[in-house]
Amino acid sequence: MPLVLTDRVLMGPGPCNPYPEVTLALGRPMLGHLDPEFIAVLAETSERLRQVFRTANPLTFPVSATGSAGMEASFVNFVRPGDAVVIGVNGVFGERMCDVASRCGADVVRVDAPWGQPIDPQQLADAHPSPAMIAVVHAETSTGVRNDIVPLGELKGDALLLVDCVTSLAGIPLEIDGWGIDLAYSGTQKCLGCPPGLSPLTVSERARERLLERPSSWYLDLNMIAKYVTGEGARAYHHTAPISMVFAMHAALGAVLEEGLENSWARHAAVGAQLHEGLAELGLELFAAEGHRLPELTTVWVPEALRSEEAALRKQLLVQHGIEIGGGLGAYAGKLWRIGLMGHTARSRNVTLLLGALAELLDR
Amino acid sequence: MPLVLTDRVLMGPGPCNPYPEVTLALGRPMLGHLDPEFIAVLAETSERLRQVFRTANPLTFPVSATGSAGMEASFVNFVRPGDAVVIGVNGVFGERMCDVASRCGADVVRVDAPWGQPIDPQQLADAHPSPAMIAVVHAETSTGVRNDIVPLGELKGDALLLVDCVTSLAGIPLEIDGWGIDLAYSGTQKCLGCPPGLSPLTVSERARERLLERPSSWYLDLNMIAKYVTGEGARAYHHTAPISMVFAMHAALGAVLEEGLENSWARHAAVGAQLHEGLAELGLELFAAEGHRLPELTTVWVPEALRSEEAALRKQLLVQHGIEIGGGLGAYAGKLWRIGLMGHTARSRNVTLLLGALAELLDR
Repeated sequence: MPLVLTDRVLMGPGPCNPYPEVTLALGRPMLGHLDPEFIAVLAETSERLRQVFRTANPLTFPVSATGSAGMEASFVNFVRPGDAVVIGVNGVFGERMCDVASRCGADVVRVDAPWGQPIDPQQLADAHPSPAMIAVVHAETSTGVRNDIVPLGELKGDALLLVDCVTSLAGIPLEIDGWGIDLAYSGTQKCLGCPPGLSPLTVSERARERLLERPSSWYLDLNMIAKYVTGEGARAYHHTAPISMVFAMHAALGAVLEEGLENSWARHAAVGAQLHEGLAELGLELFAAEGHRLPELTTVWVPEALRSEEAALRKQLLVQHGIEIGGGLGAYAGKLWRIGLMGHTARSRNVTLLLGALAELLDR
Repeated sequence: MPLVLTDRVLMGPGPCNPYPEVTLALGRPMLGHLDPEFIAVLAETSERLRQVFRTANPLTFPVSATGSAGMEASFVNFVRPGDAVVIGVNGVFGERMCDVASRCGADVVRVDAPWGQPIDPQQLADAHPSPAMIAVVHAETSTGVRNDIVPLGELKGDALLLVDCVTSLAGIPLEIDGWGIDLAYSGTQKCLGCPPGLSPLTVSERARERLLERPSSWYLDLNMIAKYVTGEGARAYHHTAPISMVFAMHAALGAVLEEGLENSWARHAAVGAQLHEGLAELGLELFAAEGHRLPELTTVWVPEALRSEEAALRKQLLVQHGIEIGGGLGAYAGKLWRIGLMGHTARSRNVTLLLGALAELLDR
């Protein structure tokens, strides 16, 4: 390592700055993946995850790879070739779901909404008479939009309801059991305040009854993984768990629960509101539809006059102030900024800092 | 975290104890996955990995999941349904290859050898007239056997040669380019002295020409990942890299190269020999065929008289001495011990400790 290490205020779309106790936990002495002490940490991690997901699902655990692997696990274990899968698409991660599902042989039925607008739940319900699955992103990291999930629990019928909670978990209200969600995955590097590397996953008993016996992926095979993580039957080795990352996630969930999940939601809401107000005061215009704006991920238009230097401005923020923010994706590259306030980064002082830096930079 | 943390001398089949500089690197301040400083660390990690793999392959990088995901990436990106894939099987990981390959639709042609014995390379070459791939495990973690790879480089013909290097990389001589290996994957928690969580992968240019355009796995799609990790064309975001684990692997590879790769091989060889001699002096009998014994992973018969208490003896080692060793797998559960000397664990002092503890335990 270099003697002087760069650190950043990570206000992009993830990773966030980890909670200090998480950074400490990463360095916890290594244990074997079958060590009784590690098994106890893993069990407690899953139990904490149930509390944060608000679920009683026994099959709740961290997938040993980043959030997109949680997405893949959610499709590859449940989708049979030819299954109708209805997917809401209003950003990059809805698009990604279509790609993943179609590789599993799904008959993908898209329900599109413009970027920046939410998906209409009724449209999802009406898109196909008997889909095997309805899938939607709760918090679209590419646009800063919150999609409504609650109505889908009642509208889903016989379908499995799959929700991408990568950027919502611990950041905004989410109730897996209360809302009738059958399958959900998340990431660690967003509102959980942990480094990237794992994908929290929860699978309802209703979904487990529909598990494929032998999915095309061995690494993500939930039948095999369940034997290791739940210890149902004998605890069978599947693959070597990423021990240090599980330590980190255990600590991150501990930090969230110590603060209180509802307090974590409230803190994200408060700093998001502070940022939205401050940006308006700077004369900047928010992108996401009002009423569906995420507090933890804010999208804001780059003023027209500055678009030619958009990347240079972000670079200046990074180099001069040590602040990372994100750029727009797809058609919005160069036109939007994406500002994250997630996990440990979701502090009022960071909003104050960013607004001050932007004021300097934009000379307002 | 509890105030008192358990630490272990990790002499099982992995994870090993990480190098101290690796544990420090885990706590390095978080950076974004598109931060120029992180991109530089990732590029240097890949360059170090090329040195340790002894390859010039541009597509050499850590897969964002544990070793078995490297195995899956190696099949899922190259195997078309109906392809003949010849696989050597003399332990758990050869078996796993068959499972993974068959899920990709391969016509799997097995070449079996008894556990504890090496695979005959000529038998692999003769198993099928024109296989798409020949796959074999270099160091079988389940049996402690080294399979011969060198002859396969000449015998492979038009097939791609895939080698599982999970337990061999940095532990015993391995020459990706020199031996004509087209595809190889490894793990971080073995002789690299790093926590588990990533899978080093290297892909020859010959193999890249045969990449499937759209493999069934999105997460492991090498076409897409290559755009992020190599920066060929524009550097396109694929998934969020597991930043802290990349920091750890960067440091682990640094430790290996600072010592010198050949010195690392020699250290593993020396402590392995010390252990083999010491076990013989205790009257214990080695399992793996002579001439094909791995120094980094030793299999030894549990004396017949002690087999009924095998698990209890390992537990006593763990609780009383803080030493983890592994048990046998499959038909050898309860009959074998597997002793790892990998990465930072591969120290003479650990051999001395284990032999002393075993002498106490076995009352010899």
